[in-house]
Amino acid sequence: MSGVTMEITRRTLVVLLGSALYEAGSKPARAQTDALPSWNDGAVKKSITDFVARVTTPGTADFVPPAERIATFDNDGTLWCEQPFYFQLAFAFDRIKVMAPQHPEWKTTQPFKAILDKDMKALAASGEKGLGQIMTATHAGMTTDDFRQAVLDWTASARHPRFNRPYTDLVYQPMLELLTYLRANGFKTFIVSGGGIEFMRPWVEMVYGIPPEQVVGSSGVVKFEMGANGKPELMKIAKVEFVDDGPGKPVGINRFIGRRPIFAFGNSDGDWQMLQWTAAGSGARFAGIVHHTDADREYAYDRPSKIGQLDKAWDEAKAKGWTVVDMKQDWKTVFPEKP
Amino acid sequence: MSGVTMEITRRTLVVLLGSALYEAGSKPARAQTDALPSWNDGAVKKSITDFVARVTTPGTADFVPPAERIATFDNDGTLWCEQPFYFQLAFAFDRIKVMAPQHPEWKTTQPFKAILDKDMKALAASGEKGLGQIMTATHAGMTTDDFRQAVLDWTASARHPRFNRPYTDLVYQPMLELLTYLRANGFKTFIVSGGGIEFMRPWVEMVYGIPPEQVVGSSGVVKFEMGANGKPELMKIAKVEFVDDGPGKPVGINRFIGRRPIFAFGNSDGDWQMLQWTAAGSGARFAGIVHHTDADREYAYDRPSKIGQLDKAWDEAKAKGWTVVDMKQDWKTVFPEKP
Repeated sequence: MSGVTMEITRRTLVVLLGSALYEAGSKPARAQTDALPSWNDGAVKKSITDFVARVTTPGTADFVPPAERIATFDNDGTLWCEQPFYFQLAFAFDRIKVMAPQHPEWKTTQPFKAILDKDMKALAASGEKGLGQIMTATHAGMTTDDFRQAVLDWTASARHPRFNRPYTDLVYQPMLELLTYLRANGFKTFIVSGGGIEFMRPWVEMVYGIPPEQVVGSSGVVKFEMGANGKPELMKIAKVEFVDDGPGKPVGINRFIGRRPIFAFGNSDGDWQMLQWTAAGSGARFAGIVHHTDADREYAYDRPSKIGQLDKAWDEAKAKGWTVVDMKQDWKTVFPEKP
Repeated sequence: MSGVTMEITRRTLVVLLGSALYEAGSKPARAQTDALPSWNDGAVKKSITDFVARVTTPGTADFVPPAERIATFDNDGTLWCEQPFYFQLAFAFDRIKVMAPQHPEWKTTQPFKAILDKDMKALAASGEKGLGQIMTATHAGMTTDDFRQAVLDWTASARHPRFNRPYTDLVYQPMLELLTYLRANGFKTFIVSGGGIEFMRPWVEMVYGIPPEQVVGSSGVVKFEMGANGKPELMKIAKVEFVDDGPGKPVGINRFIGRRPIFAFGNSDGDWQMLQWTAAGSGARFAGIVHHTDADREYAYDRPSKIGQLDKAWDEAKAKGWTVVDMKQDWKTVFPEKP
């Protein structure tokens, strides 16, 4: 079979797969269905669809073979909400409450007492040291299997304080559509997050359609051991191994993916170097930023924010002509409808 | 990589993907072809095809959904030859010769002098310290892009001392068939090697049909920097970051893949814990070992060997009923025919 024929066959398959995916959603299958219905028409949406058209049109200078269509997404603030606190922190605090019966000493020991008493002042006073103790207590000293189960229990039961919905409901509908649209066009979608890799993997496949092996994140040391039952175990150790944030993101991409993305999306200065690394490759490149401008439907924050600060990356986006999503203006909806 | 090589790579991938889709599709009635023609019929071959049939038959207790069909392969001694020395060491020695004109001091400094003079006695005398110096000189102090090019130059030019063929020709034909067979049955194939991740990634896609993002290996520290030209770079630093060997293999699997394999193949005690970790999961499991028994066609070595020692993993394979390939008996051919 000639290369050209194969290429046409594959494109046909991709198109079929794409329409099948759209059909699986809510929209009736018809020609010219909008793959990004939650994105308002405008320059931002057009920058995405134009880029995808450029790199997927065979025989053009910008064509990129499917194997090289790597797209990376930050998670906190890019695929799901990160306010009023990183959701992984909410998990850690909730976990302290679940674990408390096994730790009677926490009733009188900070920073645990502060969480059990809902004493935010005392919690803040415990500072970085206190946060480290909370992360150690909730993220180490158990097997990877047990930690996975703890995360799944939490995603099933916990509710966001403002929206009163499961945290995994507070993902951005337009970004879900973007992930599906890219995959339908032969892209391989990855998460590259400063969040914990073991915290994301249990639920990202169900929520984003991204399998665990396409998740890059921060991690603690894990140790192989023979368990008491003669079965091998992987124990989570209280030691940071890799911080996948800022300059760590291109490093994490290199380590886990081994290819430079052609498409990357972030929302904060923690994504700055990932966007630089992506944009600096040869050929067509897409670098995008979600700017949180919608205090009514979500949150509004950028330069002075402690969570998800967007400052240097925003300046470079303006200078380099990267795509900056104005959430209020560019997104028709923010979160998926309640089931 | 030349345009022609790129084209062949893409064609290979398209053909592999094509056959995978074909197999996964409607299965038209036609003569049953043997997917593993280089494997002699017998218990070993049957253990592989029986396992694949078990986990891919819908509606049975052992059925495994495609997303969870993770198969991991060691590289040195499992997918390609590792004698009379690890091929990555051959690369390092050859690289010293290529780099020597820029390092006139090497003419008089050990261990470099020993390599340039082909003085094996002096090289051996330099011991682990000397080896460390050679690895540092050849694997650090350059960008990841430059290192990738050095590896590609080497695979194109270097020849194995005994077989006088490119090192990338000395892959095992039966294992190439096994990789293709597994992928055609919905498996995702990964390399999990003690070798350097950046040493494998440039060529494994072309040779094994395994993309860089499905390679787990040992690594050195990499640092994000702004280059003199204002372009971001990833610099390879002379510091070991992760050793993906022995108990490191289940750790590497957890870190990079985030799922436990249901199928794993190794050849030495360096694969022991990967095989244990794989076999200890619930449901149907396959653990396989290549036993090098063929001094005529390849090499014969096991318990006392310094390279690829097979001792404890072999004992456990016997006790647990894992599959042990007798290379001499089970493989019709060892290497692919010369083109």
